[in-house]
Amino acid sequence: MGGIDIGIQRIVACMALVLFIVGHILATPQGALVGSRNPTLDNSSEILNFQQYGTPGENNGTYEIENGDVGTADIPTFHWDWEIRDNVPELKTFLIEQEQLQEMSSEIQQIIVDKYEPSDSYNGQRENATFLILCRNDDVFDLLQTLRLLQDRFNHHYNYDFTLLNDVPFTKDFIFLISTFIPRGRLNFGSIPPEHWSYPDHIDQERAMQARLQMDDIPYGNSDSYRHMCRYYSGFFYKHPMVRQYQYYWRIEPGVTFHCDLSYDLFKYMKTHDKKYAFAISLFEYLASIPTLWKSFKKYVNDNIHTLDNFSLQLLPLLQNDDIYESYNLCHFWTNFELADLSVFDNDQYNDFFTYLDNLGGFFYERWGDAPIHSMAVALFLNKSQIHWVNDLGYSHQPYSQCPQETQLYVDNKCTCDPDVDFSFNLLSCTSHFLKVINEDKDSG
Amino acid sequence: MGGIDIGIQRIVACMALVLFIVGHILATPQGALVGSRNPTLDNSSEILNFQQYGTPGENNGTYEIENGDVGTADIPTFHWDWEIRDNVPELKTFLIEQEQLQEMSSEIQQIIVDKYEPSDSYNGQRENATFLILCRNDDVFDLLQTLRLLQDRFNHHYNYDFTLLNDVPFTKDFIFLISTFIPRGRLNFGSIPPEHWSYPDHIDQERAMQARLQMDDIPYGNSDSYRHMCRYYSGFFYKHPMVRQYQYYWRIEPGVTFHCDLSYDLFKYMKTHDKKYAFAISLFEYLASIPTLWKSFKKYVNDNIHTLDNFSLQLLPLLQNDDIYESYNLCHFWTNFELADLSVFDNDQYNDFFTYLDNLGGFFYERWGDAPIHSMAVALFLNKSQIHWVNDLGYSHQPYSQCPQETQLYVDNKCTCDPDVDFSFNLLSCTSHFLKVINEDKDSG
Repeated sequence: MGGIDIGIQRIVACMALVLFIVGHILATPQGALVGSRNPTLDNSSEILNFQQYGTPGENNGTYEIENGDVGTADIPTFHWDWEIRDNVPELKTFLIEQEQLQEMSSEIQQIIVDKYEPSDSYNGQRENATFLILCRNDDVFDLLQTLRLLQDRFNHHYNYDFTLLNDVPFTKDFIFLISTFIPRGRLNFGSIPPEHWSYPDHIDQERAMQARLQMDDIPYGNSDSYRHMCRYYSGFFYKHPMVRQYQYYWRIEPGVTFHCDLSYDLFKYMKTHDKKYAFAISLFEYLASIPTLWKSFKKYVNDNIHTLDNFSLQLLPLLQNDDIYESYNLCHFWTNFELADLSVFDNDQYNDFFTYLDNLGGFFYERWGDAPIHSMAVALFLNKSQIHWVNDLGYSHQPYSQCPQETQLYVDNKCTCDPDVDFSFNLLSCTSHFLKVINEDKDSG
Repeated sequence: MGGIDIGIQRIVACMALVLFIVGHILATPQGALVGSRNPTLDNSSEILNFQQYGTPGENNGTYEIENGDVGTADIPTFHWDWEIRDNVPELKTFLIEQEQLQEMSSEIQQIIVDKYEPSDSYNGQRENATFLILCRNDDVFDLLQTLRLLQDRFNHHYNYDFTLLNDVPFTKDFIFLISTFIPRGRLNFGSIPPEHWSYPDHIDQERAMQARLQMDDIPYGNSDSYRHMCRYYSGFFYKHPMVRQYQYYWRIEPGVTFHCDLSYDLFKYMKTHDKKYAFAISLFEYLASIPTLWKSFKKYVNDNIHTLDNFSLQLLPLLQNDDIYESYNLCHFWTNFELADLSVFDNDQYNDFFTYLDNLGGFFYERWGDAPIHSMAVALFLNKSQIHWVNDLGYSHQPYSQCPQETQLYVDNKCTCDPDVDFSFNLLSCTSHFLKVINEDKDSG
């Protein structure tokens, strides 16, 4: 074990490694190494060609182009018999055909995959509800990890539908991976109309670009696509025909984590208790992203309060400080988790409010988020009893988490989060303030 | 929306935020904020006091100190009726009592929590097997996330036992969190005897410290505890009475991820197919961590080959280059995943090999890992047919992943990993070499 010995040993072992790797390259048959594997998410006409599919088995699945029943004509629909597991080739054929049709068509892509259910399932007792996911094609593996948690912790009991939206068509691989992963229910794969994801005519795009350059120091301050996303969630998602068919939606972001079992139907809870809007986490907005939003909101309230008969404004204290300035406390619901009744937004009053804001240009000249705007809608249009804080889910969207604090609940729901990282009563959270406002109503009413 | 307006708006909103936060602090009742919450994993006599437990319900659980049936006397055992969910207070009482006994005793801590099973469960058809987890108390939430995946993907079908080992006693909170999370089976919480986790007499600790200082540039090169861990997994884990009662163990590290359903009993597969050692990922060892290990191994083989009758050495090509130097190719099984028959290690021949290595001091003067040493044991003592590559699990230990490449398998097993990040046939992996060696046997034999 002397120095010379070690030196020789090192040299020999280094040579050995080089020889091994060279031999390894020469000896391995073509096609078995990473370098020669087909990329799986490319635009070729094959789907997920990491290996060839096995021989197709007998297949009872059928697919057909038919009129969708979701208020829009001619949505291509693939009907999938949930008991058949080997219909991979059939789905592949359908998806390749859809892509070819899409290339020939001026229509935007909308595809429904129906996975049939057994008659003894939860079917029929469910609420009319969907998970709502706006995402990119390359989010697919982050999304799969989130969906596995969602299925495991909640949805395997209920098999609620999924509605996935994208500003570009979903790839075949994306539809294939999500469709094969979710075992039951309906999967809506929708494209967003270009007019809902582009600059409106009144926007000065040069001024918008200058604004982005000046906001480089706040999160997404220089992002164009983030602004379209915020505007889409503020004023358009509820107009999509695939979303509009449902009463409730539960917004999911790829990559979020669910830490606890949810052993009851949260949608049914909303219905039974007449809740319209549920949140998990709240926090303060970056002031630099919304310099003129509050002033604009206040003007709207002042101009419209006497003409709109259902403005109770009992939830205005969620957002407005009790001071002579009637200033904004910067609080908002963190909308990456959001479970709501679509009617909160899909109505003339909210559309009027959104149009007013949109015409001011703050989505592009500043960086108005859908979170403060949804929070303003709640403050304008809802009553205290209609808000629900989901505090038993165990929910993380980096860097913040909600984790149950009650031991028996934590244990019964098989939580895995660290209770000490719970953000709910952190000084940067608005949840204790929100609960105070909501419960004052309860106490006084 | 002019510059002055925005300036004033900013000032007002800033003041508003300050006023809100100050008001928030003053208005919130003591006890509801993070700052005043009890730390949950401290050494106080309470367990997980994030809130008070509810009133205990009727409780059919019993606990008693009895002779364990695991080959060691007087292991305190808590028997838990699996149908009773509200026995949190009873477990708490048991754990507090155990801690008090521990403080008065010179015995090292060993606790068994038995969660009874229904008679119609998998009980009786299981192999005699356990999950084996060496971890620290503060790994508990990383471990819970891993256990949830393991239960969801595999163990909820079978309810195999868990054996958790630590070089210091597990805290009450750790035992509480793991015991309440795992719904069925036996949980062994064991402490490691100090003589298995300390410097043997023949080690020059000053020289060991110098070696650590000089190895700062390789992973864990300067770590003392990592060396004890490697030595423990090399020569002691199979001597722990809680481990020794089982035929098979499946090693789990806190924080690892399982990406696919495993819909068959992997332990039973090992038994049925007479497999002794299973791996998921392989790779090259850092040469700087083992400068003299291969020379020492070769000397041992040369000195013992004629006296040991079961050295078939047919697996030596796993590790040895086919060159005139008979050099080490640096390949090893990545032992953070390891599923093996305990008899591979728990026998006189392996003990003799380990004692030989231990006396050379390389665990401390270099940084010998359990991975190359286990790989050497496989090469010495096993036949080609006894090795199994687990390629359908979808397994990640940062930064490497195994992800199934066959589409139908990926779909059927509900995988969520990105097939493109699979490490199996990466140039830094030894798996294709290992498979070549193992399958040559099959082809020729």
